[in-house]
Amino acid sequence: MDFVTIIDYIGTFAFAISGVRLAARKNFDIFGAYVVGFVTAVGGGTIRDLMLSLTPFWMLQPSYIIVTAIALLTVIIFKKWIVRLEYTFFFFDALGLGLFTVVGVDKTLAAGFPMWVAMIMGCITGAAGGMLRDIFINEIPLIFRKDIYAMACIGGGFIYWLCRKLGTPMIIVQSVAALSVVLIRVLCVHFKINLPSLSGDGSSQQ
Amino acid sequence: MDFVTIIDYIGTFAFAISGVRLAARKNFDIFGAYVVGFVTAVGGGTIRDLMLSLTPFWMLQPSYIIVTAIALLTVIIFKKWIVRLEYTFFFFDALGLGLFTVVGVDKTLAAGFPMWVAMIMGCITGAAGGMLRDIFINEIPLIFRKDIYAMACIGGGFIYWLCRKLGTPMIIVQSVAALSVVLIRVLCVHFKINLPSLSGDGSSQQ
Amino acid sequence: MDFVTIIDYIGTFAFAISGVRLAARKNFDIFGAYVVGFVTAVGGGTIRDLMLSLTPFWMLQPSYIIVTAIALLTVIIFKKWIVRLEYTFFFFDALGLGLFTVVGVDKTLAAGFPMWVAMIMGCITGAAGGMLRDIFINEIPLIFRKDIYAMACIGGGFIYWLCRKLGTPMIIVQSVAALSVVLIRVLCVHFKINLPSLSGDGSSQQ
Repeated sequence: MDFVTIIDYIGTFAFAISGVRLAARKNFDIFGAYVVGFVTAVGGGTIRDLMLSLTPFWMLQPSYIIVTAIALLTVIIFKKWIVRLEYTFFFFDALGLGLFTVVGVDKTLAAGFPMWVAMIMGCITGAAGGMLRDIFINEIPLIFRKDIYAMACIGGGFIYWLCRKLGTPMIIVQSVAALSVVLIRVLCVHFKINLPSLSGDGSSQQ
Repeated sequence: MDFVTIIDYIGTFAFAISGVRLAARKNFDIFGAYVVGFVTAVGGGTIRDLMLSLTPFWMLQPSYIIVTAIALLTVIIFKKWIVRLEYTFFFFDALGLGLFTVVGVDKTLAAGFPMWVAMIMGCITGAAGGMLRDIFINEIPLIFRKDIYAMACIGGGFIYWLCRKLGTPMIIVQSVAALSVVLIRVLCVHFKINLPSLSGDGSSQQ
Repeated sequence: MDFVTIIDYIGTFAFAISGVRLAARKNFDIFGAYVVGFVTAVGGGTIRDLMLSLTPFWMLQPSYIIVTAIALLTVIIFKKWIVRLEYTFFFFDALGLGLFTVVGVDKTLAAGFPMWVAMIMGCITGAAGGMLRDIFINEIPLIFRKDIYAMACIGGGFIYWLCRKLGTPMIIVQSVAALSVVLIRVLCVHFKINLPSLSGDGSSQQ
C-alpha cells in the first residue's frame, strides 16, 4: 500500500465519520447512518466518474465499503470520545479534501479533458459528497454558506495548474496542490475568513 | 407477458402509487404528482443503470410511463378507497421491492461485476426510488429512519448469493431471493422489528 | 455566433440569474450562489446527457461557466434594479425554457431514441435545472406545485412531433416548438391557468 492509498483511505474514513455523525444526530438507524457515511465518502467521486463516462471507482474494489464500515463501528464504539477529537477529525477531513481534489484533477486530465474541466471535477470530487450528505439529512448544504470549503478545492486546482505550467515533476505538483487545499481550508477556518454572502435588500423579494 | 414482467409492472404500479399519494398530500399539482410517482417507480433502476453504464431501462420501452399514468388515474378516481387498501398497497410495495432487488442483482452480475457490487445495486434498485421521492417532497428519507426496508434488499441479495453457491437453478435462486425480501419486510413490520438508531449523547454536539 | 447560440446563452443567463437570486435570499455565500446558478442553468442538460450516455455539454466548452459568472456579477452589481426587471427575467426564463426544450428533443432524436423519450428529455432539459435548484436551497420544487412549467415543455414537444409529422422543414419545426413553449408558459401565467392539485381528503391520511 503506497502513501497516496493510505491518505485516500484516511480521507474516506474522515468523510464517512462526518456522514455517520450527522446521521446519528438526526436519529437515523444504523443502516441509514452507514448509507449517509458511504455517500459522503464516495458521492463526489461517483458524480465525477459518471460525468467522465467511467465506472464509479468504489465499484472496482471493496475497500471503500469496508472503510465506511470501520467508520460506523468507530462512531458506535467511541462515541463518547469522538466529540473531544473534533479537531483531529477536522484535520483528517481537510486532508481528505486535499487528496480527493488532486485525485479528481488527475483522473479528469487522464480522461483527456482540459484543465478548467479538471478544476471543476476536483472541486466536485472533494465537495459534492458533503453536499449530498446535507441533502440526505434535509439540511441546506453547509458548503454553500459557511467557511471556505469548495473554494479551497478551486485554489488547489489553480496551484496544480500553475506548478504544471512551471514544469514541476508530477509527484511534487500533486503534493503541493493537496497541501494548498489543506492549508487554505485550515487557515480560513482558523482566521475565520469567509466569502461574502450575497444577501441583498434588492434581491430579497424575488 | 411472462410472470416476471407482470410482477415488475405490479411493483412499478405500487411504487408509483406511493409517490403519487405522498405528492398529493403536499399539494402537488397533477403533473408534479405524476413526476414524483414516476421517479419513485423508476428512480432506483435509473441510478443503477447509470452506474453500470447502461441506458436507463425505462427509455427502451414506454410501458413504465403508461403504468405510472394508470397509477395516477387510480389515485384520482379511487382516492376515497385507497386509504382502506393500505395493507394491500403495503404488500404490493414489498412485492415490488423483492422483484426490483432481484432484477438489480441479475443485471449487475450480467454486466460482469462481482456479487458484492450486485448486492449494493439490488439495494439501490429497490430502495433509491423511495429515497428520491422523499428528497423531492422535502422530507428526510423514511428508509433511513423507520422499519427494515433497504436492509431487506441486502438480506435478499445475501440469500441470492447463498442459493447460487449451492448450485440452485437460476429461476429458483431468483424466486427464493425475491420472496426473502418480501418476507423480511413483512415480518419486520408485523413484529415491529427495527434497527437500533445511532442517536447518542456523545455524537449530538458535532 | 448564430441565432440559436445567442438564444441558448440568453436562456443560460436567465436560468443562472434565477439560481443566484434564490441562493442570495438564503444567505449563500458568493461561491455557493455561483454553484446554485450554474446547476440551475446546466443541471437539466447534464441529467439528459448522462441518460443519453453523452458527455455533459458544458464540459466541452467553457462558455457556460463564463455566462454563469456574468450572471453572478450582474446580480451583485445591479441587485437594486433586478427586482424591477422581474418581468424581463420572467420572459428570458420562458425563452430559455423553450429553447432548452427544443435542444433536448433534438439531441435525443439524434441519439436514436423515439419521440416519446425525446419529449421527456426535452422536459428534463428545460425543467430539471430549476428542480435541482430548489432541492439545493431545501425548498419543495416549485415546478411541482405552481404554474404550468414542465407541462409547457411537454406541450412544445408535442407540437414538435406534430410539425415533423406534417413534413415541416426542421428550422420551422424548432422555432414553432420553442415559441409554443414560451407562449404556453406566458399565457398560463398571465391568465393564472394552473393544473388542478391532487390534494384529496381520501389520500391525506396515509
